[in-house]
Amino acid sequence: MPDVRPCVVLVRPQMGENIGAAARAMMNFGLADLRLVAPRDGWPNDKALEMSAHASSIIEHAKVVDTLQEAIADRQYSFAATARSRQLRLPCYTPMTLQPLCVNQKVAWVFGPENNGLSNEDVAYCQGIVSIPTHTDNASLNIAQSVVILGYQWFIGTCYDVHPSDVSLSEGSASAGEVEKLFLQLDAALASRHFYKTSELQPVTQRNLRTILSRAQLSSNEVKLLHGVISVLQRSN
Amino acid sequence: MPDVRPCVVLVRPQMGENIGAAARAMMNFGLADLRLVAPRDGWPNDKALEMSAHASSIIEHAKVVDTLQEAIADRQYSFAATARSRQLRLPCYTPMTLQPLCVNQKVAWVFGPENNGLSNEDVAYCQGIVSIPTHTDNASLNIAQSVVILGYQWFIGTCYDVHPSDVSLSEGSASAGEVEKLFLQLDAALASRHFYKTSELQPVTQRNLRTILSRAQLSSNEVKLLHGVISVLQRSN
Repeated sequence: MPDVRPCVVLVRPQMGENIGAAARAMMNFGLADLRLVAPRDGWPNDKALEMSAHASSIIEHAKVVDTLQEAIADRQYSFAATARSRQLRLPCYTPMTLQPLCVNQKVAWVFGPENNGLSNEDVAYCQGIVSIPTHTDNASLNIAQSVVILGYQWFIGTCYDVHPSDVSLSEGSASAGEVEKLFLQLDAALASRHFYKTSELQPVTQRNLRTILSRAQLSSNEVKLLHGVISVLQRSN
Repeated sequence: MPDVRPCVVLVRPQMGENIGAAARAMMNFGLADLRLVAPRDGWPNDKALEMSAHASSIIEHAKVVDTLQEAIADRQYSFAATARSRQLRLPCYTPMTLQPLCVNQKVAWVFGPENNGLSNEDVAYCQGIVSIPTHTDNASLNIAQSVVILGYQWFIGTCYDVHPSDVSLSEGSASAGEVEKLFLQLDAALASRHFYKTSELQPVTQRNLRTILSRAQLSSNEVKLLHGVISVLQRSN
């Protein structure tokens, strides 16, 4: 987790619930620095605290200021989160293309009020716009969902490099020899039942069965289980 | 937007609000097929409809069944969304590594109830697990947030290939000639004020000023504005 992480700035947020939900989303991705510009219902806000749940420390440490300028005074780059296309000439990013710009830079992600979003005056203080790609008919994401997506994209790009899929199957995996023994038991059982109709087809069928067993990525315990299954099936005859 | 898109399966969901919020998240990313397994409070559910807002059609068309098996009967691949590590031997994916598996396949994303998540029995019907990387201390994402992230990752991987950053700055951009004229006006104004202290430093300073003007990616209108600014500043002397 890098020392320098983006801060989240909510400009004139209206609903305490949304402030709390944004804090939760931040917490999920290791972000802690929340700044509020002129929250509509004042501060502190009980609903924000309640909704924040395990992220209450973010709410308690939130910095409340009167203007966006104050909120981003220490930031090198501020990015306005907005879905609306703007006449302002600013570079536009997606969460993906924004992520590299948030590494080792003091960055603010700036979100507008629920009803109208950021004003053009707000956006003019920012160095760029970040828009979350959505299905065109339904572009409206609420604040917390937008924070979730920016947080997620930042986190996987910046802090995350383990691919659990490589880990999950490795423990207790059967060796090729164990799997081959299982195949041989099955093969013998099938042969004794005259399962292989012709000697031409037999190698193909055997190969297909081997493929199934290989692809299954069995554990040693599962191999034992299947040995038992085959034995029982043979016995039941 | 591809014809074959993932469906979202909510297993024993508890709160109508969360069903509605999940539907909204689906709508944002062009997903429509919602399936509910034994919703706790029965069906239809007013709170789900209310929370779904513009995604009410997804709620109205939701398929309600008794078991997970029924819900995924027509699916080729089902993936269990879970943060908990499991003893089950199933491949684990992140939203990113899952996305390619959701192209042109009949896929279900399966989410568990709010309190306990999916049971191991539920997960055993699935072909894999999808876990959303989060900051380790705070792994709990609610259902709608998980749907948002899977939907977002699916959408940007499958449906989205325009990079708005390439578009935004192209309209109305000033030509190099326009920018050079602006520089020459500035340069002349500075020279007349004896801004360039030494003839050795002059080319370096000029180059720095040119760089600033280039990097600013000005529009034709902005060039005109700055011509006016320089003129006015000269006049005020």
